[in-house]
Formats: sequence, C-alpha cells, structure tokens
Amino acid sequence: MVDITHKNNTLRIATAQAVVKVSSEDTIKAIQENKVPKGDVFSASKAAGLLGVKKTSDLLPDCHPMPIEYTGIEYEVNGLEITILVTVKTIYKTGVEVEAMHGASIVALNMYDMLKPIDKGVEIHHIKLLQKTGGKSDYKDNFT
Amino acid sequence: MVDITHKNNTLRIATAQAVVKVSSEDTIKAIQENKVPKGDVFSASKAAGLLGVKKTSDLLPDCHPMPIEYTGIEYEVNGLEITILVTVKTIYKTGVEVEAMHGASIVALNMYDMLKPIDKGVEIHHIKLLQKTGGKSDYKDNFT
Amino acid sequence: MVDITHKNNTLRIATAQAVVKVSSEDTIKAIQENKVPKGDVFSASKAAGLLGVKKTSDLLPDCHPMPIEYTGIEYEVNGLEITILVTVKTIYKTGVEVEAMHGASIVALNMYDMLKPIDKGVEIHHIKLLQKTGGKSDYKDNFT
Amino acid sequence: MVDITHKNNTLRIATAQAVVKVSSEDTIKAIQENKVPKGDVFSASKAAGLLGVKKTSDLLPDCHPMPIEYTGIEYEVNGLEITILVTVKTIYKTGVEVEAMHGASIVALNMYDMLKPIDKGVEIHHIKLLQKTGGKSDYKDNFT
Amino acid sequence: MVDITHKNNTLRIATAQAVVKVSSEDTIKAIQENKVPKGDVFSASKAAGLLGVKKTSDLLPDCHPMPIEYTGIEYEVNGLEITILVTVKTIYKTGVEVEAMHGASIVALNMYDMLKPIDKGVEIHHIKLLQKTGGKSDYKDNFT
Amino acid sequence: MVDITHKNNTLRIATAQAVVKVSSEDTIKAIQENKVPKGDVFSASKAAGLLGVKKTSDLLPDCHPMPIEYTGIEYEVNGLEITILVTVKTIYKTGVEVEAMHGASIVALNMYDMLKPIDKGVEIHHIKLLQKTGGKSDYKDNFT
Repeated sequence: MVDITHKNNTLRIATAQAVVKVSSEDTIKAIQENKVPKGDVFSASKAAGLLGVKKTSDLLPDCHPMPIEYTGIEYEVNGLEITILVTVKTIYKTGVEVEAMHGASIVALNMYDMLKPIDKGVEIHHIKLLQKTGGKSDYKDNFT
Repeated sequence: MVDITHKNNTLRIATAQAVVKVSSEDTIKAIQENKVPKGDVFSASKAAGLLGVKKTSDLLPDCHPMPIEYTGIEYEVNGLEITILVTVKTIYKTGVEVEAMHGASIVALNMYDMLKPIDKGVEIHHIKLLQKTGGKSDYKDNFT
Repeated sequence: MVDITHKNNTLRIATAQAVVKVSSEDTIKAIQENKVPKGDVFSASKAAGLLGVKKTSDLLPDCHPMPIEYTGIEYEVNGLEITILVTVKTIYKTGVEVEAMHGASIVALNMYDMLKPIDKGVEIHHIKLLQKTGGKSDYKDNFT
Repeated sequence: MVDITHKNNTLRIATAQAVVKVSSEDTIKAIQENKVPKGDVFSASKAAGLLGVKKTSDLLPDCHPMPIEYTGIEYEVNGLEITILVTVKTIYKTGVEVEAMHGASIVALNMYDMLKPIDKGVEIHHIKLLQKTGGKSDYKDNFT
Repeated sequence: MVDITHKNNTLRIATAQAVVKVSSEDTIKAIQENKVPKGDVFSASKAAGLLGVKKTSDLLPDCHPMPIEYTGIEYEVNGLEITILVTVKTIYKTGVEVEAMHGASIVALNMYDMLKPIDKGVEIHHIKLLQKTGGKSDYKDNFT
Repeated sequence: MVDITHKNNTLRIATAQAVVKVSSEDTIKAIQENKVPKGDVFSASKAAGLLGVKKTSDLLPDCHPMPIEYTGIEYEVNGLEITILVTVKTIYKTGVEVEAMHGASIVALNMYDMLKPIDKGVEIHHIKLLQKTGGKSDYKDNFT
C-alpha cells in the first residue's frame, strides 16, 4: 500500500460510470413503471451502491480506507442502455476514483441481479472514470 | 428476496468474464514481468476476486448467501486487452451467476487500482455471464 | 455457541416487527409521496433490511451463520406509527428469530437515519418476535 | 448521501438507549449471577455493541463512515427492565446519533439472543436518542 | 479455491490453541479479579473469538465459507501463560482447522489489545492445530 | 473503548512480526519456486494481510477505527522459518500496534491455509510487536 502519510488533505471529487444494457424495451418499462418483481430497481440499486462505495477498501487490498463525505448516484436511460453515474467526494490525502468505480459496478451488478428473472440478456459495459479533480493531476475522459 | 425453500440442491456452475483494457503495451509488459510497483497484479487480483465472490450476498440485497464450493480465476492477454474468466461452482438451490460476475468485477477493479499509478487509461469492459449450468435453464452466450 | 451438529434440518419461519413512531403527519406524507430528501424511504430501508438479515451472525457472537432462503419486508402505516414486518425462512438446524428481529431493527434504524433531517422526534418501539414455526416449540405472540 | 465536505470538525456526543424487558425475575437473577448458559450477558453484549457502533455505516446506506473516538456502554436494571445506555463521541463533521442508536439495538439484540434459551418473552422497547451535543442543534429528550 | 463439490458432508471437529504470555503476575491477577480497565478480558475476548471464527473465509482468499455449528472457547492459566483453546465443529465437505486457528488468534489479539494499557510485554505464541477429526486424515499433535 | 477525543494527531508507526515454521525444506522450495497448488503464497498472503490490517477494528471490540496510511509486508526466510514483518503507519490519535499484529497474524494464517495441502506440520510462532514510534512511549523489543 502506497505511503500517504506525507500528503495533504485536499478536496477530491471523482465521477465514474457504468453502462447496463438490457435486451428489450419491456425491461426498461418494467423498471420505470416499478413493476420488477424484486422491487424498485433504481432505488434499491442506489442503496447497494451507497454501501458499495464505503466498502471499497474492504475488497481491494491496496486501497486506503478513507472518509466518504458525499456519494451521489444518478441514472440516464437511452434506448436499451442505462448509464449509471456515481460521484464521490472527500477531503483526504488520496483520491476517490476507485471508490466511484466500485460504486458504479455494484449499482450495475445489483440491477443485473434484480432484472435477471425478467431479462436473461443484461450486460454491464464501460465501467470507467469520467472525471476527477484534486490531487496531482485532474483528469477528464475524452469521450464524454 | 425470492423464496427458495422449496427448491432442490443441484450442481450449479457459472462462468463470467470481465475485460480490462490498458492503454499501452508497456502496461502489459510491466504486469507480465512483475514490475508493477504495487506488486504482482495477477496474483493479488486473484486473491481479491476469491474474496469478492464470497462477499457477493453482503453487497447485493436480494442475493442469497450460499456455500461457494469452487472458484477458479484465469487471465487471457490479447494485445491491450486482458480477459478475466471467473468460474464458480456450488451445490445449492440457486445459481452462482451473480457471484461469478461480482468476482470478475472485483478482479478488474483491483487491476485498475494497481495499474492506476502507471497507466491512466485503464477501462473495464463487458462484464457478462458466459455460461451457466444447473437450475431451470442452461445458458450459453452466443458471442463467445 | 450452542452445538447444533446433531440437529435436523427443518423449515423455520419467523416474523418480527419493529414500530417506528414519527412526530408529525407531514413525515408520513413525505414518505408516501416520496419527497424525503435522502430518497425513497421504504425502498432503501428494505434494501438495508435485506442486507441486515444476512449480517446477523456477523454482529451477534453466539448466532449461527446460516442460509437465508427468504426474506420479506412489509410496511403498515397507522396514524403516526409505521409497523415493519420482517419474515425470514430457512431450512436449517436452528431458527431465524434473531435474524428477523435484526432485520426489523435495521429497517427501523435506516428509516430513522433517512427521516432525521425532516423529523427530530422519530423513535423506535417494540422490536419483538410475532411468530415462529419449526424447531422444538412454535410461538405466537399474544398481543398480535 | 448528504454532502459534508464543507462542514467543520466539532466534538459530537450522542447518548441513545434501548430497553430490554424480560418476563421473569429469574432471568434478571441469572444475568446478575452470571448463570446464563451462553455466558456473561452484560460483558458479551457490550463487546457486540462496541463492534456494532463501528459497523453502522456498513449497514445504513446514507450514513457517513466516521472515526469513533469513544464508546461507552452501561446497564441499569429496574424490575424486569434493563436499560442500555450507549454514548458515542467523535470529532467530525457529522453527528453520531445513529451510531449510538445502532449500538444500543445491537446490545439489546445480543441480550435477546443470549437469553432466548431461558426466557421466551424478552422484548426490546424504546430505542431512542436521549441526548446529543455538537452540530447545529443540541437535543435533549423531554422524558428522561 | 479447491473444488469440493464432489465431497461428502461429514462431522468435522478441530481444536486449535494460542498461547498468550504476559510479563507479570499482576496482569494475571487483574484479569482474574476483573480489574482490567477495558473490561472483562476473558468474556470480551471470547465474544471476539466467536465472531472471528465465523469471519475466517472473509479474510483468507482460499478458505471456503461454511456453516459453523459449534464454537467453544476455553482458557487455561499456567504461571504467566494463558492457553486459549478453540474448538470448532461443522458437518460439511471440508474441515474447520483454519477457522479454529483464526478464532484462537483473534482471542489472543483481543487479550493483547485489552491488556496493552497495563502490560507492555504481552506476546502471542504457538498458534497451532491440536487435533482434528473427520475428513481424509485425522491429526493429533505430538506435543500436547 | 478508551476516549481519545482529547488526543492529538501524530505520526504513528508500528512493526510487528509473525513467524511461520514449516516442517520440511520442500515446503520452502515450493513457495520460492511458486509451485504450491493454491498459488503464489507470498503474493496472495500479502493481499490477505493488507486487507486484514484494515479490518482490525471490525474484529476487536475496543480497537478504534482509523485511517491506515501505509502498510508494508515483507518476508525473510531462515531455514524452515519464515519471518513476516508488517509495518503500519498512520497520522492519528492512537497507535497502530494491534493493526500491525493483526496483519501479521492474517498473513501467517493465510500461509498456513495455502500450505496445509502440502505440509501438515506448519505452525505459527511469536506474533509480537517489534517496534513502535509516536504516542506517549516509543518501544523497541529487546530480543530483535
């Protein structure tokens, strides 16, 4: 694990995305009309994602445990694709990129788990960092 | 959470994949020659993935806790893409698809976390189920 | 921890309740109209409770880890009181009473946590077992 | 999750209570004379509660992870009622009310779990915040 | 992780020990007279050990998650040495040796943690398997 | 749990060791030549230890949760003995001795778990603090 004892606290913000692709318009409708048998997909997956962000350092050996001072989770629906946007903020010595990416992956997996009984063709695509600020180098994904 | 009290134990096998795409041949070399500063990427990420599979029901609300009787993790390198294959087996009343997919996502995220200091362009693609056997319906992804 | 190696697997069902009492009709309305700033209180608290049931043996030293084969969570609103009903099922050597009670307490605490910014007077009452079947002795609470 | 990046660290103290009601004087005696078969109820439940306080943000999606700089757990016996008092302190940007309440609920549940074999009528009552200091508004429960 | 899908359930029992060595008779007295400031060392460390046994597969990547159907924890005091004996039982496809050893190590570490303020010379010795039955080969340590 | 609200943040460093003793030179060779069937023992055990350090306060009731700002894990082989050295750093109000000792014990247990199929005589010896700096009193073990 990298030594960060000498680093300063600064505001760190990272946004990551994951894309969930379903195989039919009916799946999108079932989510939006809250008719998925396992429950409200967006709300339950957000709850899972909020917890997931906080558990990142529990799962990744080299990841520093850190205060999570904000997590926001949003969904955008485009045709058969649902884009999950997870933004994490902290004031600490190291960034929250991996936390945001882990949160996005847990939201996506939970959607998969809840949708599995009604759609066998759900896939998860493009888990990636969209933006980060704070630390040595800001970053902005070119394709966004 | 779906009621599975009436279901029978059968052998369940699921294989999921995740694809990690790096931005340079140097990253692939650093992994293969074990020169990544944070340590042995394949071995440490396998350890994280083995733990991740077992923690799936801790993170996903509707997922049943279950015995995990085998987890195998393999890597295939093709150009700038590393394909992670996670196979999970159990003899239980419900399948291990989500466990395999969660394992694959944790292996991929750990690779991202370990490679971040040497490659800013790592992305995670195509977390999906490749195959499952046992339960009501077998499944085989068409594109594999 | 009690030795259960000699016991037989039987179907075990337990239902527990917790009562959340809010201090104003506005709080009830905000929940029902999904206007609580932290999000959908019933859906997010159900997600927390589903996870909480599965983590019971992680928190209580003498509690056996066990398969959780069903968890159902329901809400009943009566005036300023919201009754949470958590039903857990398993086929195992020991009962799921404590799991149901822990689930009910986590749902209640999560409601408290989400409602705190809009209602300072929320209290949690009467976490108790309502009913259990399976094992040596069935049980039915007199007051229900 | 509420954004707390802009808030200042201040000393936060919260005290919560839970009331465990047993159904017989024999149960109280068994606890006090350390004759409960599962072991020392007060000491083991305190250990569970100390861990429970620290795991609050693991269980409640919107709860910020935070340093826990003090937890004290005390018991008061009045007739058939045992009042559990949990006090938590931290110097951080947000309060520890939910942590104190979660600790109190875990102590109570652990007492229930340890007493179950000798008393089928144990109930948990009145999990509530008694007092908090620090943050925008102090709070003192009227009925204490 | 080794594939155990083809193995049969049998009764598995393992006993492990850890030895905690303190540096002064006063420490032993403080434990036995329950005067250690952090609380009842034997009872709290037993609670930690009961939880520790159940979390073994959470910490060790290759370890199978399994039902823990009994854990017993005992202490023997000889001069400045306290021997911790942890016995674990299950009926499952693989043994509980590592679970017993992990439990013993957690009991020992918790004793260290509670005794640290009154004795700077506490050490942990000889965490080892004493006995196991069930599975392909029974085992009995020669030196016990 | 000791009240640390009044204490100052200082740099804290602790190094602990655990000694793993195998029963044959072949075991040492299998580790060094990476021929242990369960995988790369040093690398996987390091991953487990990095996670273990971070989970210390999850397992020990009185242990404060704290930022872990560095963990280093090294191995020294001498004949049949492998010495594990775990160094932990933080800038916080209380020390990281128990975290370093817990990390060392998890590395040792994971080595035991991975080596068990090829060597039935593995034991864990001498988990102890070697050195700590920061806080009221520095400490240096005499026998090192």
